Amino acid sequence: MIILFTDAELRYLAEHPLGRLATIDPDGNPQLTPVTFRVNPDSGTIDIGGPVFTRSRKFRNAKANPRVAFVVDGHSVAPNEYGQTGQGIEIRGRAEIVTLDPPLMAFFDAESLRIRPRRIVAWNIEGAGYNARDAT
Amino acid sequence: MIILFTDAELRYLAEHPLGRLATIDPDGNPQLTPVTFRVNPDSGTIDIGGPVFTRSRKFRNAKANPRVAFVVDGHSVAPNEYGQTGQGIEIRGRAEIVTLDPPLMAFFDAESLRIRPRRIVAWNIEGAGYNARDAT
Repeated sequence: MIILFTDAELRYLAEHPLGRLATIDPDGNPQLTPVTFRVNPDSGTIDIGGPVFTRSRKFRNAKANPRVAFVVDGHSVAPNEYGQTGQGIEIRGRAEIVTLDPPLMAFFDAESLRIRPRRIVAWNIEGAGYNARDAT
Repeated sequence: MIILFTDAELRYLAEHPLGRLATIDPDGNPQLTPVTFRVNPDSGTIDIGGPVFTRSRKFRNAKANPRVAFVVDGHSVAPNEYGQTGQGIEIRGRAEIVTLDPPLMAFFDAESLRIRPRRIVAWNIEGAGYNARDAT
């Protein structure tokens, strides 16, 4: 078992079903889209899937260039000195293609993306402030 | 006046104060972070700022490589045939550095990023389905 996320971060990820995935297209432009995801607590990897997923731009981008970033965030904490109320987790890493049986959700393709975190930045999940670390 | 967004899309953007910005770092990795933004209805550009903004990774990334993607989205519509309830707008384009006086919000740096859209993809904002178009 690899501990990449704290218990509070795993709870936060479990309670927020929508994340955003950034990939890079063949021309070098970032592409960004909301995605359904699930964390694998034992490995600290993130599975991402969808209906007609393998035909999506994000899947084709990640297949050609596995460098991805993923964020789960929202407004939910008391304002800090700047009036900001956000909390969240950003994960930078590599995506690989996995086949999930059953798929992540009904109607989803079995072929999915699995993100292996390389860098994790969490903010305002456990107390105020940032917790940034390499995931190795 | 350049019409890049429909009235319904402008309303949607005005009602959702949190977006996510994807940039590319000097090593070619995407970076992804929530940001406060404001649309300029006349030009269709998007201004993004923050406190200690010019020292942020996203600002430095966009300064070195102006290719960015930006998304505003959420869960709010009736489920489609796949059970999905999302709606939102993704914008791909170029970022330039502008100085805003006053800044976007109190405590924000005057130096900000302005996104000029190149490609816009809206989904489930006006009726069901996608509306993807080049912003030229």
